[in-house]
Amino acid sequence: MSAAPQKLGVFGGGTVGGGIVEILQSKADHFKSFTGTTIDVSKICVRDTTKKRDFDLPPNCELVTDYDSILKDDSINVVVEVMGGTTEAKTVVFESLKAGKNVVTANKALIAAYLPDIEALIVELNGKNEHKVEFRYEAAVCGGIPIIRSMQSDFVGDEINMMSGIINGCTNFMLTEMDAHGKSYDDALKEASELGYAEADPTLDVGGFDARSKLKILMRLGYGVDVNEEDIAVRGITELTKVDFEYAKMLGGTIKLVGVAKRLPGDKLAAFVSPTYIDADDTLASVSGPTNAIEVISTNLVESTYIGQGAGRFPTANSCINDIVALAKGDTTPLPFNSKGSLTYVDDFESTFFIRFKYSDDLGITRQCGEICEKYEVSINSILQNPVTCRNDAAFVLITERVPLSNIKKVCDEIEQLDWCQGTPFYIPILRG
Amino acid sequence: MSAAPQKLGVFGGGTVGGGIVEILQSKADHFKSFTGTTIDVSKICVRDTTKKRDFDLPPNCELVTDYDSILKDDSINVVVEVMGGTTEAKTVVFESLKAGKNVVTANKALIAAYLPDIEALIVELNGKNEHKVEFRYEAAVCGGIPIIRSMQSDFVGDEINMMSGIINGCTNFMLTEMDAHGKSYDDALKEASELGYAEADPTLDVGGFDARSKLKILMRLGYGVDVNEEDIAVRGITELTKVDFEYAKMLGGTIKLVGVAKRLPGDKLAAFVSPTYIDADDTLASVSGPTNAIEVISTNLVESTYIGQGAGRFPTANSCINDIVALAKGDTTPLPFNSKGSLTYVDDFESTFFIRFKYSDDLGITRQCGEICEKYEVSINSILQNPVTCRNDAAFVLITERVPLSNIKKVCDEIEQLDWCQGTPFYIPILRG
Repeated sequence: MSAAPQKLGVFGGGTVGGGIVEILQSKADHFKSFTGTTIDVSKICVRDTTKKRDFDLPPNCELVTDYDSILKDDSINVVVEVMGGTTEAKTVVFESLKAGKNVVTANKALIAAYLPDIEALIVELNGKNEHKVEFRYEAAVCGGIPIIRSMQSDFVGDEINMMSGIINGCTNFMLTEMDAHGKSYDDALKEASELGYAEADPTLDVGGFDARSKLKILMRLGYGVDVNEEDIAVRGITELTKVDFEYAKMLGGTIKLVGVAKRLPGDKLAAFVSPTYIDADDTLASVSGPTNAIEVISTNLVESTYIGQGAGRFPTANSCINDIVALAKGDTTPLPFNSKGSLTYVDDFESTFFIRFKYSDDLGITRQCGEICEKYEVSINSILQNPVTCRNDAAFVLITERVPLSNIKKVCDEIEQLDWCQGTPFYIPILRG
Repeated sequence: MSAAPQKLGVFGGGTVGGGIVEILQSKADHFKSFTGTTIDVSKICVRDTTKKRDFDLPPNCELVTDYDSILKDDSINVVVEVMGGTTEAKTVVFESLKAGKNVVTANKALIAAYLPDIEALIVELNGKNEHKVEFRYEAAVCGGIPIIRSMQSDFVGDEINMMSGIINGCTNFMLTEMDAHGKSYDDALKEASELGYAEADPTLDVGGFDARSKLKILMRLGYGVDVNEEDIAVRGITELTKVDFEYAKMLGGTIKLVGVAKRLPGDKLAAFVSPTYIDADDTLASVSGPTNAIEVISTNLVESTYIGQGAGRFPTANSCINDIVALAKGDTTPLPFNSKGSLTYVDDFESTFFIRFKYSDDLGITRQCGEICEKYEVSINSILQNPVTCRNDAAFVLITERVPLSNIKKVCDEIEQLDWCQGTPFYIPILRG
């Protein structure tokens, strides 16, 4: 147990930074009795020291504007990076580690982009220096859910076979509104923005890219595999329409934006971010609003689900605090973590699928669908067709048996060429299908 | 990071012990790369060395029958206690700690009975000895759910306001069968026994006592309060009838056996184990079969839910493995844990309640109920009465507003004296009510 007083330099005095300072202040005695040492914020680096803050500056804590006043301060042994971004934050994190300081960050974008580089730096530093540095980033994925530590601690003797996560709060809020309250996409997005769940530019959320960054990190932790984000197939929620929810309800379930990474036979690994059909009795179906959830299917633990807040001042700050306290009591995470990974990433997987076709009425639709599916060896499980066909969003849904995604793509490409097919067929996987 | 080779002495060569040995064997290389040291099982203490085991003995591992061959073996630095019981297991744990060995246990009964004593011993030992001992018991509550470590790590800077857990797999399986499949209590219990979810004597399960032991441990961890198990009100599932599920369904929810501990104004803490009405859109309602779940409402993390396997060879062994690996890499849990607790346990709390009365038809039932409720200041939210009154289990349900449990008891005691009231009125709390 480390008895060294923890002197923190915090980069960022915004929402999360303020939350961290507040918790450290209010729990100071408890942390001291728990860790045997003191945890004090020495300096907070901000852009503008005159800006009014929504938290009280701790005693003896200095607001600074230049990075070096923290980076070059040898009395500071822990750097907390909650400034965001990947340029200056990268400099801060790398320079802090090189200066022998432990680092805690909440920066998802930074971790998604540079985790292997950061780990390599730490391995190098800890290989040659007697003083070891530690790096923690619990808050970087799913704010208040302790999924990083769980991956680093609870699954070390386990074999993860599938991870499925609702890992973007904005889109889950929107889909809940669209499904449960029948709202339009535009209204749901407007409300998400008003409530602060959506970014000013919501593209990263609704396009599925934010979820993909998180999935990439989870894949690194859970499977020991580094994948280029761009290699993970992503479909956002922008193409979802009311009729999709209607058919999902007919099937007894709902549609959520889910990030999935699953082990395939032959040491392969597939992943995607996509709207996904989920049966109502699956726990993930009950995860509503901006809440996040991750379901892990594994050999030992069988099925584990972690549900919690994906963002917000105190959930995110709480995760940073857990990292800070773990450092104070001397816990270590040997790096590189989970280097056992020997899986090969592949851009194809088998699943049952939900395919929705918009159509104008015509003769021979079922026959043509049947022929094309047969040609690409796609077995049809069922066809759902709402009898109300006079509406302008007339659509039917085809549920397939378990088939490769690549075959589904071929079927959809070919059907899209047919006269009756309106727009691009919309396919989504069925969770656990 | 501890580089000392970990030499394990395991007490118990049964289901869990075998699982631990198997995982240690199959993951040896991974654990070595992760912890920087080796983890070997040196000796396994069993009752009968000639009994056929369902796992392969590791190389250089000895089966022994006398405790001292582990306790007095100075080369063994970690004892894993998976023998169960509270008598000999207590001796093993206490003597191991005194001998300077770290201890990992999966023994719920032992922890429920002796956690404060164990912590006191460790504080004493670590106060006077240079060599510190560590004690871990992740598997003791909810097998595969990392709830102990979560309480010790994720909530250290948080304030828990309510914990609600489905923490007995046998009863949750039975209630799922009774609710979803309309099975009788007896059929559900028979099936639970056949599937190995129920003990030979199921009293501890169906009576709620097993759940109460776990709740007591969770209260110690989450609130820092030691409560006598006997002081926690417990109601098992034996009084539940088909009609209760029918009314729960009418209300849009279900009934689960839940252990609840909640902070009350004035630094008070209340707790109970009871069948509890849960709305269908609450995550706990989706937890079916023998699965366990714990929902924590707290100031920072707002709402966190952990769902997983409550028992079984590999889920339980996996939790022991996590403890063993944490010890190998030198993680510590300073004790006494969460000594901040300043809450006073009280045997009363406010909630909305679901009260079911069996009755023989009579005039004036509603008036009498109304009068008695008014007398004890119990506001009625609604009365549900199934129109089928000719059946022999005719019953109606009264839903109250938020009132003290003590008032509900008075109402029920008085109504029970009335001629039309058949048997004892059955009241259960409404979760989050």
